[in-house]
Amino acid sequence: MKLASLKDGRDGRLVVVAKDLTRCADAGAVAPTLQAALDDWSSAAPRLKEIAAALEAGRVSHAPFDAAKCAAPLPRAYQWLDGSAYVNHVALVRQARGAEMPASFWTDPLMYQGGSDIFLGPREPIPVVDEAWGIDLEAEVVVILGDVPMGATREEAAAAIKLIMLVNDVTLRNLTGPELAKGFGFVQSKPASAFTPVAVTPDEFGAAFDGAKVNLPLLSFVNGKPFGKPQTGNDMTFDFPALIMHATRTRALVAGTILGAGTVSNRDADGGPGKPIEEGGLGYSCIAEQRTVETIRLGKPLTPFLKFGDKVRIEMNDAQGRPIFGAIEQDVVRYRRG
Amino acid sequence: MKLASLKDGRDGRLVVVAKDLTRCADAGAVAPTLQAALDDWSSAAPRLKEIAAALEAGRVSHAPFDAAKCAAPLPRAYQWLDGSAYVNHVALVRQARGAEMPASFWTDPLMYQGGSDIFLGPREPIPVVDEAWGIDLEAEVVVILGDVPMGATREEAAAAIKLIMLVNDVTLRNLTGPELAKGFGFVQSKPASAFTPVAVTPDEFGAAFDGAKVNLPLLSFVNGKPFGKPQTGNDMTFDFPALIMHATRTRALVAGTILGAGTVSNRDADGGPGKPIEEGGLGYSCIAEQRTVETIRLGKPLTPFLKFGDKVRIEMNDAQGRPIFGAIEQDVVRYRRG
Repeated sequence: MKLASLKDGRDGRLVVVAKDLTRCADAGAVAPTLQAALDDWSSAAPRLKEIAAALEAGRVSHAPFDAAKCAAPLPRAYQWLDGSAYVNHVALVRQARGAEMPASFWTDPLMYQGGSDIFLGPREPIPVVDEAWGIDLEAEVVVILGDVPMGATREEAAAAIKLIMLVNDVTLRNLTGPELAKGFGFVQSKPASAFTPVAVTPDEFGAAFDGAKVNLPLLSFVNGKPFGKPQTGNDMTFDFPALIMHATRTRALVAGTILGAGTVSNRDADGGPGKPIEEGGLGYSCIAEQRTVETIRLGKPLTPFLKFGDKVRIEMNDAQGRPIFGAIEQDVVRYRRG
Repeated sequence: MKLASLKDGRDGRLVVVAKDLTRCADAGAVAPTLQAALDDWSSAAPRLKEIAAALEAGRVSHAPFDAAKCAAPLPRAYQWLDGSAYVNHVALVRQARGAEMPASFWTDPLMYQGGSDIFLGPREPIPVVDEAWGIDLEAEVVVILGDVPMGATREEAAAAIKLIMLVNDVTLRNLTGPELAKGFGFVQSKPASAFTPVAVTPDEFGAAFDGAKVNLPLLSFVNGKPFGKPQTGNDMTFDFPALIMHATRTRALVAGTILGAGTVSNRDADGGPGKPIEEGGLGYSCIAEQRTVETIRLGKPLTPFLKFGDKVRIEMNDAQGRPIFGAIEQDVVRYRRG
């Protein structure tokens, strides 16, 4: 089942989307919004699946599905937690800095609490005041959870995964350093994130989701040029249940929590830092990693961060090459007060 | 006007509360929940004030107001941002550690993004798995905001303050160190916070709120014994508009955002670290600060963190000694899976 929120008020209007992303059917009879459906998922999900089946069979009235009319699946959410599951990324950053990485980083996940009050739709621009802040994409796989108790077991954590989507976790790279030094996490350096048009239930993934990891190439493009295609199941030191267990060590999580696994990052086939796509590598999911690898290989970063007018595209195809979520397509724009 | 959310479903049921906190009237005709009222505040607020006036005049049906029946005013919120506005607190912690405090801390606020998906009602216990985690209270003044644009001016920031309340920002002190070292902020060390029964509009404060700071003693008690009574308008290096401007440097904030000013901390009259109440001082708003002052004065911390069975009370009275918000009264309990 695939779900989307058409732009409408603060929380959008829930629709069920066809597997091929061409059509959608109103889901208002089940729940007005995705959050409302998640609040009562065990009752809502079977009824939404009935609509999905009717939509595939052409037995329900529907409209063309247009990603440009979509808000984020959750336009505002009660929680956005983002882990750094691909420790390779962190190791590279440390290596470029000449800093030792604590051994605990391989067993204790990095995770931050992100702003969840305003999320961008898949085609909404990225508004930034100052290009000098170092505008970067971060392409990630994220899950939407049902209620999770404090001290969740691995089984409870896995069972809490209700939907999967992709995020562009926009990062202002030149503001992260001072915020990391303060230790209090990211407030100014992480503006509003954008999500794919569609959130998808785990059963749609077949063998590409084993209950803990999605394993498909995550495709990023900058200005139309392939930028990254790492395999999301590789080098994922902490899988989703592990990240959920980390988050629930001291507290419960409410239904509708979005939990991310961080920038996807693969080692090169030879075990070294990943190469750009044009050199036969899998590329990157953020410019910061490319700059880090350039620093390691060439002594200094070469690739600039994003400029106003640049375009970012993030998507994922199934093993048959069919788009799963629809694409995030965003322009970077100068923020001006309206 | 005073507002509360009686326990009912995930978001509570909005009521208007009498100034003297004895009675409340249903507000369902205006908005079912406080978040719904905040989503349309310019329309909802005048109608809620009409109910408040009718309640004071005895012209509307009402029920006794019982803080034990209250959820947090926002039982789940889209955002919880907490600044450290009382830099004196941070300076003391650094002094006890023998660490220099960066000069920038006096001009660039510390602020973290907290978990907002589950908040505790004013009489709900604090459930913790392990006493050894160092269970601490943090008594703070917080505001609830309307929508705030990115790059808000000081005037816009001040105008966004719709409601004021108190929080017990529960902190697991022995988990903060490792999380601060990781730089990603507080995920495990800040479990669910609890709020006062009632949120209050700024106009209720008269001279005690100047549009930027509340200036009244913040009263904390541990096991019934007075623990802190610092003056919230003193030593507040960053006032609320300054904190809001910090948060909106790179992004907008959605209506219903809760923004805190951090643990309230006053210097002693002689300019030194504050003394305990039993020594004639104003005491503290968290045990960590008392332990810090003990370290500075006596060479080591003496006061233990909270134990299972301990009781915390946080409240604030007006200049005439009348309670403004009702009290947070929480027992610390061992968390057991149900």
